[in-house]
Amino acid sequence: MSRFLCERYLSLEAYTPGEQPQDMQYVKLNTNESPYPPSPGVVEAATAEAGRLQLYCDPTAAKLRDALAARCGVKRENVYVANGSDDILYFAFMAFGGDGAFFPDITYGFYKVYCELLGVRYEKIPLKDDFSIDPAQYAGLGGMIAFANPNAPTGLALSRDTVEGIVRANPGHVVLVDEAYVDFGAESCLPLVEKYDNLLVVQTFSKSRSLAGARLGFAVAQPALIDDLNRIKFSTNPYDINRMTQAAGIAALAADETNMENCRRIIATREDAARRLRQMGFEVLPSSANFLFARTDKIGGGDLYRALKQRGVLVRHFDAPRISDYNRITVGTPEQMDALIDAITAILEG
Amino acid sequence: MSRFLCERYLSLEAYTPGEQPQDMQYVKLNTNESPYPPSPGVVEAATAEAGRLQLYCDPTAAKLRDALAARCGVKRENVYVANGSDDILYFAFMAFGGDGAFFPDITYGFYKVYCELLGVRYEKIPLKDDFSIDPAQYAGLGGMIAFANPNAPTGLALSRDTVEGIVRANPGHVVLVDEAYVDFGAESCLPLVEKYDNLLVVQTFSKSRSLAGARLGFAVAQPALIDDLNRIKFSTNPYDINRMTQAAGIAALAADETNMENCRRIIATREDAARRLRQMGFEVLPSSANFLFARTDKIGGGDLYRALKQRGVLVRHFDAPRISDYNRITVGTPEQMDALIDAITAILEG
Repeated sequence: MSRFLCERYLSLEAYTPGEQPQDMQYVKLNTNESPYPPSPGVVEAATAEAGRLQLYCDPTAAKLRDALAARCGVKRENVYVANGSDDILYFAFMAFGGDGAFFPDITYGFYKVYCELLGVRYEKIPLKDDFSIDPAQYAGLGGMIAFANPNAPTGLALSRDTVEGIVRANPGHVVLVDEAYVDFGAESCLPLVEKYDNLLVVQTFSKSRSLAGARLGFAVAQPALIDDLNRIKFSTNPYDINRMTQAAGIAALAADETNMENCRRIIATREDAARRLRQMGFEVLPSSANFLFARTDKIGGGDLYRALKQRGVLVRHFDAPRISDYNRITVGTPEQMDALIDAITAILEG
Repeated sequence: MSRFLCERYLSLEAYTPGEQPQDMQYVKLNTNESPYPPSPGVVEAATAEAGRLQLYCDPTAAKLRDALAARCGVKRENVYVANGSDDILYFAFMAFGGDGAFFPDITYGFYKVYCELLGVRYEKIPLKDDFSIDPAQYAGLGGMIAFANPNAPTGLALSRDTVEGIVRANPGHVVLVDEAYVDFGAESCLPLVEKYDNLLVVQTFSKSRSLAGARLGFAVAQPALIDDLNRIKFSTNPYDINRMTQAAGIAALAADETNMENCRRIIATREDAARRLRQMGFEVLPSSANFLFARTDKIGGGDLYRALKQRGVLVRHFDAPRISDYNRITVGTPEQMDALIDAITAILEG
């Protein structure tokens, strides 16, 4: 830290992304990436743009937003896009957190970091003992609300009806539903956007569309909320999505049948892996995401994480209250899950 | 604007980027893009990464920073990279603007927008009548200082010695030197970084390296300043530079001889165009950038801009105090400059 850093950031604890170790080839089940590559059309589209990189990208991302609008059944003015959904979440806390923010005690760890960076007051609302969100605790909170649905790292999902209840119970504030993992079995709230001016649905191309490394997130809401987010974007970095990623996003949507088929494969792999883990004595939360959240009495969460890493399998362990017994395991290919199960078997037998 | 937007942003005026019209093919001399495409190696490198987009990018951008460190004669810990230099400028005002900020009254229009977004107090220091920065006015100002060198939209440059004087005269605050255009004939302050812990040099791949559409900026400073910027990045969007752009940046540096040769061609084109404009009665500021800033008594700045646009030539006009008589004209290919001169000739004769 330098002697010039603004005082309010001195105690800031940045978010720790999942490890991206470069030292060996891991079975990488720690950052919820898709095990399937993007479609050939994505590579073609990105390549075509690479030859035109001397020209700025379209700061309004009009073609990409049109493609998303068509996919989501809304209009261009309902769609916001950004350099990954993290930027959308950050801008949303900036724009709508004026009265403070509320989110679950166990959820995406970045919500808290945004609030601390931005000086937004926040309160964490405890999940129930079974790690589910208690909708009764989200009525008329007096501030912006944010949660992931399905939630991370638990994988548990609320029904659309339940989320609608929360949106209706907070008409004076924005309810941000972070649907990063929604395509793996949860109900999206996109159909509610037309009805509620305080609903902001955030999704991403990183998980279900195999574009984590391209950085592309989007949000759907009524035009006034989208305008607010654009006002922030055009006050920081108008050209935030490079040419190649804009083209890749359009191409990924053109192949969205394949993407959704990949999601179905991942769901099948997930259910099979969950069954096998339960047979081995694990408690596995019912997941609607592309990961499993699991624990066992036989070995501590941190110990299992380290033992798996030694055997070349990376999973994600959060050394945090209530969940330090668990590991979050990304659902990879069937072969990767076999390697995981084999490694766990060897660890528990050793 | 929604009824949920935080009050402090109600009066925010976002930055207006240069037009990117999609309705016809313009001779596009309005956003300081390079007229030359990136090297073939850039396209190859980006294409190779496009096939791996299901995996996150390296949030530390280690290989790219190593390549930049080698190019700049510094170490990895001296180098910060971001999704365009706009993000670096924004983060720098956030991190180092605690005591307020000072910048020229005529410079990159975004500095003011960042301050207003962030709530950073700022003061504009008038350029001299000849549009040059008066270093005497930048001594012990009591806040962060930022200026572009060469300055935009004037194109005028300060010598390295002069900048060093400003850095020495403000030991208690960060001096940000925005060298977006430095490769077109100005002296970079990179060699001063080792000596001054308050110097932050910001550059970009957008202009001299033909990567405007890839979004890649970098900063060089002592490690403590770089740490501060990373603390902000890792509190907003750690995966801010996508895989393709990281690879494109490394490939662009491998071909940096070609990039610098392109800069020399642009400088030659610029000098020729300036000479011809002066022959036509224009006052043209001596430029060290890839653009010219010019006016004439024969037609107003706004009128010339509009007349050129009608003829298919886009330049940038700023309807702002002191400079509304001028247009900023990007230096394109010799053929593009011929088209510009022809259009101006026709307009002045018409």
